[in-house]
Amino acid sequence: MLVLNGKEVAGEVRSSLVPRVQAFTQKYGRAPHLSVVIVGDDPASHVYVKNKKIACEAVGMTSTLHELPADISQAELTLMIRSLNADDHVDGILVQFPLPPHLSADEVLSLVASEKDADGLTYASLGYFFAGKPFVKPCTPEGVMKILRHYKISVEGMKAVVVGRSNIVGKPMAQLLTEANATVTLCHSKTKNLSEYTLNADLVVVAAGRARMLGKDDFKKDAIVIDVGMHRAGPGGKLCGDVRYEELEGWVKAATPVPGGVGPMTIATLIENTCELAEKRASLKN
Amino acid sequence: MLVLNGKEVAGEVRSSLVPRVQAFTQKYGRAPHLSVVIVGDDPASHVYVKNKKIACEAVGMTSTLHELPADISQAELTLMIRSLNADDHVDGILVQFPLPPHLSADEVLSLVASEKDADGLTYASLGYFFAGKPFVKPCTPEGVMKILRHYKISVEGMKAVVVGRSNIVGKPMAQLLTEANATVTLCHSKTKNLSEYTLNADLVVVAAGRARMLGKDDFKKDAIVIDVGMHRAGPGGKLCGDVRYEELEGWVKAATPVPGGVGPMTIATLIENTCELAEKRASLKN
Repeated sequence: MLVLNGKEVAGEVRSSLVPRVQAFTQKYGRAPHLSVVIVGDDPASHVYVKNKKIACEAVGMTSTLHELPADISQAELTLMIRSLNADDHVDGILVQFPLPPHLSADEVLSLVASEKDADGLTYASLGYFFAGKPFVKPCTPEGVMKILRHYKISVEGMKAVVVGRSNIVGKPMAQLLTEANATVTLCHSKTKNLSEYTLNADLVVVAAGRARMLGKDDFKKDAIVIDVGMHRAGPGGKLCGDVRYEELEGWVKAATPVPGGVGPMTIATLIENTCELAEKRASLKN
Repeated sequence: MLVLNGKEVAGEVRSSLVPRVQAFTQKYGRAPHLSVVIVGDDPASHVYVKNKKIACEAVGMTSTLHELPADISQAELTLMIRSLNADDHVDGILVQFPLPPHLSADEVLSLVASEKDADGLTYASLGYFFAGKPFVKPCTPEGVMKILRHYKISVEGMKAVVVGRSNIVGKPMAQLLTEANATVTLCHSKTKNLSEYTLNADLVVVAAGRARMLGKDDFKKDAIVIDVGMHRAGPGGKLCGDVRYEELEGWVKAATPVPGGVGPMTIATLIENTCELAEKRASLKN
């Protein structure tokens, strides 16, 4: 079984960014810049945004962390985002979710300018994306495509199944695989006989959010299995995915482990997106 | 075989609009209004927009037709759309495609305000739609859902196949069926062994744009077949769809004819969308 090593692919993405960031910095007199907004003090969210900041800086980009108090009003948050939209030195904007319950995620997703939307998840960005004209692509599904391209796995003509229909992973994943000429079935919690679909598929992307839900018996021989799950539910409280990875060896052709598979690709794609947005916006002005 | 009579369903949609339009008119002192923009003098396009205008007026709504010369500049077209976006008495805006080649459809699809986008096809509208939070739904796929609801066909748990991946029909159709808890496979020109998919499906929506492409042998017994095609390629130059309809009797459970199936639903949904946008915008202000 080929182990699809996302940590390695993410490393290559980061390495490829270093000269791009250098070239940008030389040409425009400043590095690409990501502004991260976080509201409140959820510890897990603070770890995520810290990692994003570190990843930016590791490739030579700069970033600002805007830590807003948990009781900030919607109007103040809106004002903050508007000022980042307007700030010419801000290339990427990322608002860390979840927000405290009194704030509207909807409003944020309507507000961040598409040309600065590093996550590719605002409503407008999703619209451009589904119409096949993205500014940037949603990070996790695009991270999966990068892994496939890295290992020269062409999905054209493949039967692909995506398990999970979230706006962040499942739906955009189906869109990207369809664009790449796979024939995609989007399965979800209301799908009857899920394994009937997965057993027929050349490629299965599992983004169901249920720990260790699928195993060897759900995949056909020589399938390619991508696991987007991430849970602290493995034996001894270890990290695990939506797939029982240890069953796959000797059966499937290739699979992503958890950790070290899709996970590292999300942040790598986020910083590549930011660099790409910086380049696009700068080239339009110059 | 149950004939899914779109003409009849469209008639019911229109009838249901009459009292809604009346109530709106009484409450706000004016009828819901659709502004249609057409550039150049393509005869087919002029027939389409005329039919849309007639359909509006038949339910008591008003409409304006803006006929712009074929050589209008992008800047002038933009100005026109901006003025309609800003005009408080305009509830729905529809720009008839195709545009002359010197004009950018992209620009138009970025410009029309989502809260007035009667077609539901601008980039922003598509984004809200794919995120499951539509202003209104794209007309043709929503027209198909209206037919299914009218005949009390629940797609929940069904295996559905959509043939064709256009932004206007195939992709939003897959989204609506997925939202309604069907498990959807999106097939397209690069799908290998198409009939393997269609033969397995409880419901097949054919929007491939190829005249008489599928027939009895492509569907399983008792399937439901929806034909979005419309071609002047039937025997004797008659209208026909993507499906060889005459083969289906005695085999499938239900099917839409062409003409008189999905076609009439598109305009009916367009005017319902306009009425809905009018109601939403008015209720937000009052």
